Amino acid sequence: MKSDLDRLMAERNYDALLVTGGSANNPPMYYLANGVKVGEHTVLVKKRGEPPVIFANSMEREEAAKSGLRVVDQSQYVFRDIVKQENGDRLRAYARLYGRMFEDVGVRGTVAAFGSADQGAALQLLTAISELNPGVNVVGEFDRTVLDLATATKDAEEVKRIRAMGRKTMRVVDGTAEFLTSHRAQNGYLVKKDGARLTVGGVKRHINRMLMDEGIVDAEAGTIFAIGHYAGVPHSRGNDRDPLPLGRTIIYDIFPAEPGGGYFYDFTRTWCLGYTPPEVEQAYADVMGAYKMALKAMRPGELTRTYQKMVCDYFEARGHQTIQSNPKTTDGYVHSLAHGVGLRIHETPSFSDIEGNADRLDPGVVFTVEPGLYYPERGFGVRIEDTVWLNPETLKFEVLARYPYDLVLKVRDIGGRRSEVRSRKRK
Amino acid sequence: MKSDLDRLMAERNYDALLVTGGSANNPPMYYLANGVKVGEHTVLVKKRGEPPVIFANSMEREEAAKSGLRVVDQSQYVFRDIVKQENGDRLRAYARLYGRMFEDVGVRGTVAAFGSADQGAALQLLTAISELNPGVNVVGEFDRTVLDLATATKDAEEVKRIRAMGRKTMRVVDGTAEFLTSHRAQNGYLVKKDGARLTVGGVKRHINRMLMDEGIVDAEAGTIFAIGHYAGVPHSRGNDRDPLPLGRTIIYDIFPAEPGGGYFYDFTRTWCLGYTPPEVEQAYADVMGAYKMALKAMRPGELTRTYQKMVCDYFEARGHQTIQSNPKTTDGYVHSLAHGVGLRIHETPSFSDIEGNADRLDPGVVFTVEPGLYYPERGFGVRIEDTVWLNPETLKFEVLARYPYDLVLKVRDIGGRRSEVRSRKRK
Repeated sequence: MKSDLDRLMAERNYDALLVTGGSANNPPMYYLANGVKVGEHTVLVKKRGEPPVIFANSMEREEAAKSGLRVVDQSQYVFRDIVKQENGDRLRAYARLYGRMFEDVGVRGTVAAFGSADQGAALQLLTAISELNPGVNVVGEFDRTVLDLATATKDAEEVKRIRAMGRKTMRVVDGTAEFLTSHRAQNGYLVKKDGARLTVGGVKRHINRMLMDEGIVDAEAGTIFAIGHYAGVPHSRGNDRDPLPLGRTIIYDIFPAEPGGGYFYDFTRTWCLGYTPPEVEQAYADVMGAYKMALKAMRPGELTRTYQKMVCDYFEARGHQTIQSNPKTTDGYVHSLAHGVGLRIHETPSFSDIEGNADRLDPGVVFTVEPGLYYPERGFGVRIEDTVWLNPETLKFEVLARYPYDLVLKVRDIGGRRSEVRSRKRK
Repeated sequence: MKSDLDRLMAERNYDALLVTGGSANNPPMYYLANGVKVGEHTVLVKKRGEPPVIFANSMEREEAAKSGLRVVDQSQYVFRDIVKQENGDRLRAYARLYGRMFEDVGVRGTVAAFGSADQGAALQLLTAISELNPGVNVVGEFDRTVLDLATATKDAEEVKRIRAMGRKTMRVVDGTAEFLTSHRAQNGYLVKKDGARLTVGGVKRHINRMLMDEGIVDAEAGTIFAIGHYAGVPHSRGNDRDPLPLGRTIIYDIFPAEPGGGYFYDFTRTWCLGYTPPEVEQAYADVMGAYKMALKAMRPGELTRTYQKMVCDYFEARGHQTIQSNPKTTDGYVHSLAHGVGLRIHETPSFSDIEGNADRLDPGVVFTVEPGLYYPERGFGVRIEDTVWLNPETLKFEVLARYPYDLVLKVRDIGGRRSEVRSRKRK
C-alpha cells in the first residue's frame, strides 16, 4: 500500500523517488500523482517522508493541481535558456533541469528512478543526471522494486475501485452471453437474423460497445475471444472473420480498465455453444478442479510459487503435460496460475515457479487465479479466471466479482446441414 | 522511412538495434515488427543490412508470425533454467538470455537499444547486458535517434494509412458538428429534447461512439473539447459537467489512432455556438492568418524552427504576447507551431525555436500546423490544426484531410432568459 512506501524507501536507503512521463500507460506516475491526467513531460519527485511534488508543464497546471499535491510550473526553469547554456545539447540540458528541480525541493543522495520511457534514452538521461549533479546518485531497480512491493497490496479505496470494475466487467460478460444466445444456430453455426453467420469480429464489436456504455476501456486492446484451435493458443485473441460453430470451446478473457490509466479487472470464462464434446468436458472438469483446489489451499503469507507447483502436480496426476516437467510444451498447462492485478494487468506478485521468486500472498494483495488446459492440435483450450483479494481484516480470499461457471451456452438450433463439428456431439 | 534505417545505422556505427516490449504503446516495436500485436516480453533484433528477427513468447508465436519476419520461440532458451544458473538473480538471467539471443543471430559490437520500459529497470538491464556479454556494447540514444529520423518521413503505405485515419477523423468531426447543431438553444445554452442542458460529457460520449463506429481509438484518452475559460488553457480536456453556452469558444482537438498502436491523425477546430463575440472573431482571424502564412511560407529542406519564429513575429506584430519574448506567458501564443505525427502523436520533427533544434522539413515528413491564441482570464482560446504531408514526389505540402474553417455553428435559439454570455452578442 502507498502507506508502506516510506518504510520501503528507508529499507533501501533511498532519499527520494523520481518518476517521469505522463499518467497514461505509466502506472508509477498515475499511482503517485493520485490518478490525475498529466502529460509526457511531467516530473514527480517524492522525498522520503514527504508527499510528492509534481513539476508540470505550464499548460497542464490545472489538471495536475487536481491531485491535491504541490504543483510547480516547469516554465519557471525556462528550459530554452538551459539548452542555450548547454550549446543546444538537450541531454545535458535535461540533466541540468532535473538538478534544478532536485535542488528546489531539497533532494540529495540516492534517487530511485521510475516511469515509462524509451530505454535507450533512459540509459543516457539517468547516467547524465548523476554525472552532472554532484551529490545526486540516480539508481534503477529491476525487480521487486519499492513501487512493485507497495502497489502489490491494495488499500480500501483501491479495492473499492477494482470491485466496481469487476461489477462493470460482469455486466459486459453477461451481456456477451445474452448477445450470443439471442442468435439461432443453423448448419452448426450461429447465424444472424438475415441468415449470415455471426463472426468473432461481430461479437467483439458488441463487447466494445458494452465496455463503452460502462465507461471502461480495453486499455491493452487485448480482449480474447478465441474459438476452437485459437482457444488452444493461450494468447491468441481470436480472428475477427471466424464464424462461431457449435460445440467448440470459446475462451473469453476480458480485462478492462478505468479510462486514463486506472485499475484493471481480469476475468475469463470458457463457453461452448449448444453442447460440449466429452474431451472438452473432461478438461473443463480438471480446470475447475484445479481452480477450486488452489483457491481452497491458499494461506496468507505463503509463497506464491507453492500454488503453481500444486496445480502442476494436480494436472500431471490427471495425465496432462505441464511446463513443470516440460518447459517447452504447448499442450496441457502452459502458463502460470496467477498474477497480481492493479494499475497493470500483470503486476507483483508473480506466481512463477522460478528460482528466486520470493513473492508471497501478503494481506491486501489482489491477484488472478486462472488455471487452463490447451490442446491446439485437438482444436480446443479451456481456462477459468477470477480476480481475488486477500482481505487484510478477515484474512479470507474473496473473489471480487462473482459469475457462474457454466460451460454450455444454450442456443436455439433450427437445424440445417450439420457441419463437421456437429458429428462430435455427445450422445 | 524504414528504408533509411540501414544507412542511419551505418552513419552511427551501430551493428544492430535491440527493441523490447509489446507493440502497444511502443512505437519502435510496432514499427519494426510491421504492426503485429506482440506482448510485453517480446525482443526484436535487427542487424544492420538484415530484416529484424522477433523472439516471441511461445504463446504469441502465431501473432508474431503475421509480421512476415523470422520468429524465434523464446521458450527454447528455458528461462527458468537460466534463472537457476544465476541463483535466482533475474537481472543477470535476463542479461544472459539477451546474450544467447544475440549469439544465435550473430549480433556483436554496438547495439542501440529502443522500446518502452521502466526507466530504472532499463538502466539496470542495459548496463548488465554489456557487462555480462563481452563483445556487446549496448548504447542508448537520447535525441534524434536513428528511429526518430527514419520514422519522421513516411513511405507511401504509411501516408495512405494516415490519410485514411484523416478521413475517418473528418467523419467524426462532422458528426460532432451535426450532433451539436441538432440541439436547440434555450436561455443561452444548448439543451436536449427534455430541456436539460447538454454537457461536455454528453458530447464526448457521442464522439467516443463515433470513433468506435469508425473502428479508431482515442489512444491517448485525450480528446479535447474545452469551452470558454478551459479553451484558454491549451491542454485542458474540458470538464464533463460543463454545459454549452452560446457565443463561447470551443476548442475541439481530436487525435485518434488505429487500434493496437497504429498511426495517429491530429486535428483541431474552434467553434462558437450561435454567434461570435468580436474579440474572439479578431483572435480567430489572427490565427487563421498565421496558419495560412506559415503553410504558404514552408519550403522543403528548411529548418522547422524558422516557422515558429515567423509565427511568433506575426502574432507579436498583432499585439499578442508569445513565448518568444516572454517564455512564461500564459496569454497569447504559448506553444510551438507544429510537431511530427505518426505512430506517436508527437514525434520528430520538433518545431521548437530552441538552440540546437536542427530538424528540417524533409521530403516525406508528416506534421501538424497548429497556431493558437489563448486568453484564459478573458475566457477564451482559439486554435486551428491540420495534419500536413510533404509529398516527396511533388515537393508540395498537402493537408491530408480537408475540413471547413467556419467558426460559428448555427443553432436554433428558442429564446428564454438570456444568460450573461448572451449580452456579449455582436450587434
